[in-house]
Amino acid sequence: MPLLRSRLAAANDPASPFPLNNLPYGVFSTEGTAPRCGAALGDSVIDLEALEAAGMIDAGAPVFGAAALNPFMARGKDAWARVRARLQALFTEGCIESLPGDALIPLESARLHMPFTVAEYTDFYAGRNHAFNVGVMFRGPENALPPNWLHIPIGYNGRASTVVVSGTPVTRPLGQMKPHGSETHIFGPCRRLDIELEMGIVVGTGNEMGRPMTVAEADEAIFGFCLLNDWSARDIQAWEYQPLGPFQAKAFATSISPWVVTKAALEPFRCAPPEREFELLPYLREPGPMSYDVKLEVLMRPEGAAKATRIAHTNYNEMYYSAAQQLCHHAIGGCAMRTGDLLGSGTISGPEKENRGSLLEICWGGKEPFTLETGETRTFLEDGDEMTLRGWAEGDGYRVGFGECVGRILPAPPERDWSA
Amino acid sequence: MPLLRSRLAAANDPASPFPLNNLPYGVFSTEGTAPRCGAALGDSVIDLEALEAAGMIDAGAPVFGAAALNPFMARGKDAWARVRARLQALFTEGCIESLPGDALIPLESARLHMPFTVAEYTDFYAGRNHAFNVGVMFRGPENALPPNWLHIPIGYNGRASTVVVSGTPVTRPLGQMKPHGSETHIFGPCRRLDIELEMGIVVGTGNEMGRPMTVAEADEAIFGFCLLNDWSARDIQAWEYQPLGPFQAKAFATSISPWVVTKAALEPFRCAPPEREFELLPYLREPGPMSYDVKLEVLMRPEGAAKATRIAHTNYNEMYYSAAQQLCHHAIGGCAMRTGDLLGSGTISGPEKENRGSLLEICWGGKEPFTLETGETRTFLEDGDEMTLRGWAEGDGYRVGFGECVGRILPAPPERDWSA
Repeated sequence: MPLLRSRLAAANDPASPFPLNNLPYGVFSTEGTAPRCGAALGDSVIDLEALEAAGMIDAGAPVFGAAALNPFMARGKDAWARVRARLQALFTEGCIESLPGDALIPLESARLHMPFTVAEYTDFYAGRNHAFNVGVMFRGPENALPPNWLHIPIGYNGRASTVVVSGTPVTRPLGQMKPHGSETHIFGPCRRLDIELEMGIVVGTGNEMGRPMTVAEADEAIFGFCLLNDWSARDIQAWEYQPLGPFQAKAFATSISPWVVTKAALEPFRCAPPEREFELLPYLREPGPMSYDVKLEVLMRPEGAAKATRIAHTNYNEMYYSAAQQLCHHAIGGCAMRTGDLLGSGTISGPEKENRGSLLEICWGGKEPFTLETGETRTFLEDGDEMTLRGWAEGDGYRVGFGECVGRILPAPPERDWSA
Repeated sequence: MPLLRSRLAAANDPASPFPLNNLPYGVFSTEGTAPRCGAALGDSVIDLEALEAAGMIDAGAPVFGAAALNPFMARGKDAWARVRARLQALFTEGCIESLPGDALIPLESARLHMPFTVAEYTDFYAGRNHAFNVGVMFRGPENALPPNWLHIPIGYNGRASTVVVSGTPVTRPLGQMKPHGSETHIFGPCRRLDIELEMGIVVGTGNEMGRPMTVAEADEAIFGFCLLNDWSARDIQAWEYQPLGPFQAKAFATSISPWVVTKAALEPFRCAPPEREFELLPYLREPGPMSYDVKLEVLMRPEGAAKATRIAHTNYNEMYYSAAQQLCHHAIGGCAMRTGDLLGSGTISGPEKENRGSLLEICWGGKEPFTLETGETRTFLEDGDEMTLRGWAEGDGYRVGFGECVGRILPAPPERDWSA
C-alpha cells in the first residue's frame, strides 16, 4: 500500500509518523479545555468530539467527548472500521468538505493524556531471545527455557493502577531484596532498576466469563497497539518471584505511549511468526499471519545530557506468540476479557547483542557495563536517567509511527520511620 | 464486648450472624427495584439509601443509592465510623426514633449482588500450613517453604473481571495441562478442580503511586472482610506456573460472600499472629495485634444430595501475615492501591488434617480420596458439586457472621472447533 495523500500537507511528509494511513487514537486537551478523544494526523490532532458534534463522524453513539477511548473501543469492530473509513475520506487529498473551525489542533499545543482507562493489565513473556537470556541469568543455561515455554504463551497478571502515560516520571521503588553476595535480605531502594521494551495490546471488546474465544475471534477483538515500558526492579524480582511470579518488582510503574495505533493501520505489516519448534495445540493455531513488522528502538539520556544514545533496536516480529494467540490463551479458561484490558507483549529482544530489549540483557546481569555517547557507563538505571521507546512500521514511502514512550527516573521516596 | 441489643428482636438471637454488633454492608435489590446499599441486621436488610434520603444517616455525600459500596468506601474511616455509630444508635434496643416505612426489608425477599466493584484483585500465600503442604506436593519436602517465605508476604496479581458474588455458578475451565504420567501436554477440561478457603480483604482507601504506606496506615485503609473462594485448576496450574506464577489456573472464577464485615465489627476479635520464626524487617512490624479470630468451615454437597458434608474447619488466626502487613507490602514499592481493591488472604489451613483449606491438601494431591456423608468419595471437584464457605467470630453471647460463600460447578463449555 502506498502513502495515502492527505489534504493536510504535513501528513504527506514521508518522515511523518502520522500519515493518513495511520490515524492513531488518543486523548488530548488544550489550555483551558477538557480532555477528549483525538486522532493524530501530520502535525495536528483531529478533534473527534468536534467532528462528532458536527455530525461528521458517527460511532453509533456519542463516544468522543469522553476522556478515554473506552466508549469508542466498546462499540466494536464495525464502528472502528466505519469511523476510520470516514476520517480517511474526510482528510484525503482533494476532499473539499468543509470542517468545523475547531476540528484541527496543532499537535504542539495539545497535552496528551492516558489514551484509555486500563481495565486490567497482563504481561506476557513471549519473546524467545529474552526468555532464554533471562532464563540463563536467573536459572542457568540448562533450565533457561522452561519446559512449557514452546507450548503455551506464559503470562502473569500485572497492576493496572500504575499504568501511566508517556512523560510521567517513575519513582525508584523501595522493596525487599537479597543483594548478590549478601547473606541476608534487606529493605531499601532498588539497585537494579530496569526497563522492558514491549508492545502494548489494547483489547477493544471482550468475552463473557466462561465463554472462551478462538484466535480468530481474539484477533477481531483487538483494537490496537501502543509502546509499553514494563519498568522492572530486578533485585526485588529475584528475591520475591518464587514461587508465584513477579509482584512488587513490576507493580510500581508501566508506561505507555499516548497514541494507540489501530490494528487496521498495521494490516499491511502483518507477517508470519518465527518458525515453530513444535506444533502448537489446535486452539493456538493462527488462521493467517498474525505477527507485525514494527521496528523498535530504545534510547537512554542521562540527566543533563543534550542527546540520547540509542542502546538497542529490534522488531516486534521477533515474538514467538502473537497478540491474538495471547488474547485467546488469556480467555481459554473462561476468564472474562473487557474493553480496556492491556496486554504487554513480553520483552522484545532480537538475536544479537544490539537487539536486547532490557538492560538486564544488555549489561548481562551487571557484568558487562555499556558506554553512552556522553562517555558515561551504565549497567542499570540511575536517578535522572530518561528512557525513550520508539516504534514505527516502514511502508512504501511512509511510516506508521507509534510516537514515543518516555519516562525519567526520580529518586526513591525519602526515608521515614516505617515501623511508626 | 457483650451483645448489643437491638430494637429488632431477630438481631438479638445468639445464633444470628447479624446482630447489632455486626452490621455488615452489601448491595441488594427487591423485585422491581434497583440495586442499592444495605446493611444486614437480624432477619432484615436496612435500606441505607432510604435512610440517607430521609436524612437519617450521612456519609458526607450521597453514596448509598449506588449499586456498589465503592462511593461509601472512598469516603474514608471517619465516615465509616460516623455511619456505623449512627446506625447502632438508631437500631439499639429502646430507640423509638421513627424509621421510614421502607427502611427494613426482609432478608429473604432481598436479592444480594456483588457488594463492591473490584478495582484489582491480588491473592496472597500467607498461610504457613498451606504453603508447606502445597510446597511438599509441587516441589518436594526439601524445597517446600521457599527461602523468602518467612520474610515477605508472597502475593501475585489475580483477575478482577471474574470475581463473582456467592451463588454464581462456576464453569469448569478448559486449559493446557500435562497430566500425571503423560509424556505430553494436552488441551481439555480441568481434571483437578479445587477450592481455596480464604478471607477477602476489602481496601477502602488507597495511596498515591510512589507513596508507600506503613502497616498502621494500611490497617486504617482496610474497610472490611468477606469470605473468598479462590477456585483453582491444579493441573493447569502445575503446567503453567513456572516461572511467572498462576495465570489461567486462577483466572476463571473467584467467589466472595455478599456481605462485607467491617473492620470495626471485628475489633473485639483482634489477636496476635502465630509466633515469628525470624524477626520481620521493620516496615512489616505490627504496632499491635492485627490478626483476627474468625472461625471458618468448608462444606461440600454433591449434586442431588439433601445435605452438605463439612470437610474442613479452621481459623483466620492461622495466617502468618496479617491483612495490614499484606496491604503495606503491596504498596511498599509505590504501587497505587485504590478503593475496591480486593486482597485474598491466602488459603487458610490449620495444623491438622481436618483443618485443610483446599482439596489439594485434603486429598493430598489425589492420593487420599475422602468420603462424604452421602457415601460418595471425592478427590477434586465433580460437575454439580456445590461448595460453601462459612465464617463467624464468636463473641460473648453473640456472633459476628460472614454469611455464606457458595458456588456450584457447571460442566466445561461444549467442544467447538478451536482452530476455526
